[in-house]
Amino acid sequence: MYVPPRTSLRDWPMLCGMGIINAEKSEFNEDQAACGKLCIRRCEFGIEEDQEWLTVCPEEFLTGHYWALFDGHGGPAAAILAANTLHSCLRRQLEVVVEGMMAAQPPMHLSGRCVCSSDPQFVEEKGIRAEDLVIGALENAFQECDDVIGRELEASGQVGGCTALVAVFLQGKLYVANAGDSRAILVRRDEIRLLSSEFTPETERQRIQQLAFTYPELLAGEFTRLEFPRRLKGDDLGQKVLFRDHHMRGWSYKQVEKTDLKYPLIHGQGRQARLLGTLAVSRGLGDHQLRVLDTDIQLKPFLLSIPQVTVLDVDQLALQEDDVVVMATDGLWDVLSNEQVALLVRSFLTGNREDPHRFSELAKMLIHNTQGKDGGASGEGQVSYDDVSVFVIPLSSQAQESGGH
Amino acid sequence: MYVPPRTSLRDWPMLCGMGIINAEKSEFNEDQAACGKLCIRRCEFGIEEDQEWLTVCPEEFLTGHYWALFDGHGGPAAAILAANTLHSCLRRQLEVVVEGMMAAQPPMHLSGRCVCSSDPQFVEEKGIRAEDLVIGALENAFQECDDVIGRELEASGQVGGCTALVAVFLQGKLYVANAGDSRAILVRRDEIRLLSSEFTPETERQRIQQLAFTYPELLAGEFTRLEFPRRLKGDDLGQKVLFRDHHMRGWSYKQVEKTDLKYPLIHGQGRQARLLGTLAVSRGLGDHQLRVLDTDIQLKPFLLSIPQVTVLDVDQLALQEDDVVVMATDGLWDVLSNEQVALLVRSFLTGNREDPHRFSELAKMLIHNTQGKDGGASGEGQVSYDDVSVFVIPLSSQAQESGGH
Repeated sequence: MYVPPRTSLRDWPMLCGMGIINAEKSEFNEDQAACGKLCIRRCEFGIEEDQEWLTVCPEEFLTGHYWALFDGHGGPAAAILAANTLHSCLRRQLEVVVEGMMAAQPPMHLSGRCVCSSDPQFVEEKGIRAEDLVIGALENAFQECDDVIGRELEASGQVGGCTALVAVFLQGKLYVANAGDSRAILVRRDEIRLLSSEFTPETERQRIQQLAFTYPELLAGEFTRLEFPRRLKGDDLGQKVLFRDHHMRGWSYKQVEKTDLKYPLIHGQGRQARLLGTLAVSRGLGDHQLRVLDTDIQLKPFLLSIPQVTVLDVDQLALQEDDVVVMATDGLWDVLSNEQVALLVRSFLTGNREDPHRFSELAKMLIHNTQGKDGGASGEGQVSYDDVSVFVIPLSSQAQESGGH
Repeated sequence: MYVPPRTSLRDWPMLCGMGIINAEKSEFNEDQAACGKLCIRRCEFGIEEDQEWLTVCPEEFLTGHYWALFDGHGGPAAAILAANTLHSCLRRQLEVVVEGMMAAQPPMHLSGRCVCSSDPQFVEEKGIRAEDLVIGALENAFQECDDVIGRELEASGQVGGCTALVAVFLQGKLYVANAGDSRAILVRRDEIRLLSSEFTPETERQRIQQLAFTYPELLAGEFTRLEFPRRLKGDDLGQKVLFRDHHMRGWSYKQVEKTDLKYPLIHGQGRQARLLGTLAVSRGLGDHQLRVLDTDIQLKPFLLSIPQVTVLDVDQLALQEDDVVVMATDGLWDVLSNEQVALLVRSFLTGNREDPHRFSELAKMLIHNTQGKDGGASGEGQVSYDDVSVFVIPLSSQAQESGGH
């Protein structure tokens, strides 16, 4: 069943493709998407009524594009709130720093008035560029949005959380901000480039174990901080088994004590890995009320709402016509590798050059390939039972459109 | 002034080259070095007198090679202790896990007796390899050595700390463990590969700010956790200035408050960057008693004694005759780039193929190039006023020598 992406955005960027499918594991789709034009007011002069999205962006606005995917868990509430809120948080955060973004190098003082004549030199020595302000705005927007979601969920008596993957095209650069296990890749004729990395209990093991080491009370005596190859049991007592602690990337042996038999803070491998036996991701928005089943142990202290931001300098890319960015929730990447997706993208775009809707068709085709109905192009016939959402963003049209700014 | 490396090792690996120079900024050399054969007892059977280093290694011993550089600060005491102690800690840590290292895959239980028939499967799923035990042993050895140094310094009323860069050749692999700002690189005919990265207040900014955020009392109200382009002063009050906090890789603006005028937790750029106005490195051994001048603020909570370990699979390298690893303290890298060092290494080795002492001569030549007496090969004539220590390790002879094991 195809469902339209839930979005209140008036100005859908015509040139990107989008597909979303509900695996029907829940009544409402836990995947949510949003995209639209981002209009950032360049001066405080003449503030009128607050307009969420402007279709006409006059000179005093800096314009960009925004795409976002949210993969909910524990219900769709957090994902819906994020889809309705994050772009406003981002716009607000960007408006705070937009003056600095317009300069060749952000000034030490936002007023532009140097307190100290060597201020520009310090900014240069620290290597601070305009793009660092956009990165900072994305980081702060995720935090602000997480606070909003926490308040809204509490006020409405709802629960849940979501991952967030955001792409913003601004001033010739594509910023990809990720908190969770969605993924964005750049697909070109002869290159695949990762634009995000995943944050799961496994990839963030040391950060999570470190927190439990610092605040052991967070585990309430119910979990062990240590990692073992499998959960230990009575028979293991007194034996020397493989383990690792927060400070270790390598492994060592320790003699099993009774406390090691507790349930592990992080347990399982790959897609089965869980934080406190509960969550498969270690970053995202929401989950303020989430507790381990039948306990008072909170998940939130272990979760980060901060994204990792990567920057793609599109203006420096020597763009080719079919260069696209593919953003998708884990439902896609669980069954198709980056290489398989790139093969599908390249062959589809080469074969459908004249179709004006080819990016939308491509997004739907990628989703179709996760449903295993005809074995898919991969021939392996892996099937996704998860919600799947995909954006296909053609870079050449973004770059052309923004040429005037 | 050339001084022999301070080492108690009986069995100097003949084939590597070593140079060390005292910049005479202190009476005793703050750079210390150690190297030798590492003999790891393979079974507990027949433990006799404890021998630090064995020149004859019979069958029941696994042998490797060990090289280490320690760059001291606040006096040579910690560096001397580390040079005398770390190899023993490492040998002890390796002996604990050596049984597991000899297996194709380390067993879940050190006894080899499976408690659960699927134990090997869990070890495989976690991707645990024999080399992970060596990495774990190096991580634990650094911690153990740091504890020993803390006790010894206190007992003898001495002070000081040191960085530590260790290379271990074992079972066809080179392990490089680094805590501090020394560096190891692989130089081949057509490749330069970094084998370590530096740990300084700048490279570890987020970890250090995070700790100050978690435990604000560590700053005793004397420092600000935030980073600014320069130290703020009264004139900046009320202005919006660039800053970043622990959760940010990007930058943002904030209105300056009185508390922002305090001295920054991390201040300065590049070689001038300092932690709490005191230390230029953020990892290393020792410094248990170090406090910020005229205060009770301790440095140690912000320092890590854990190294980052990289593994070079020498057996997979298709070794060429002149492939070498260059290990050196920051005195070398401050004035010569990786590329400049690689050029010097390649031209020297090509021109001195017959010299049996060519690796020692090369190490001395590299040090000579930091003294700027004749402008150096770089032509830029940069001069190091720091102690400089260099190991040049030819990989082909290590691999040959270990062929029998």
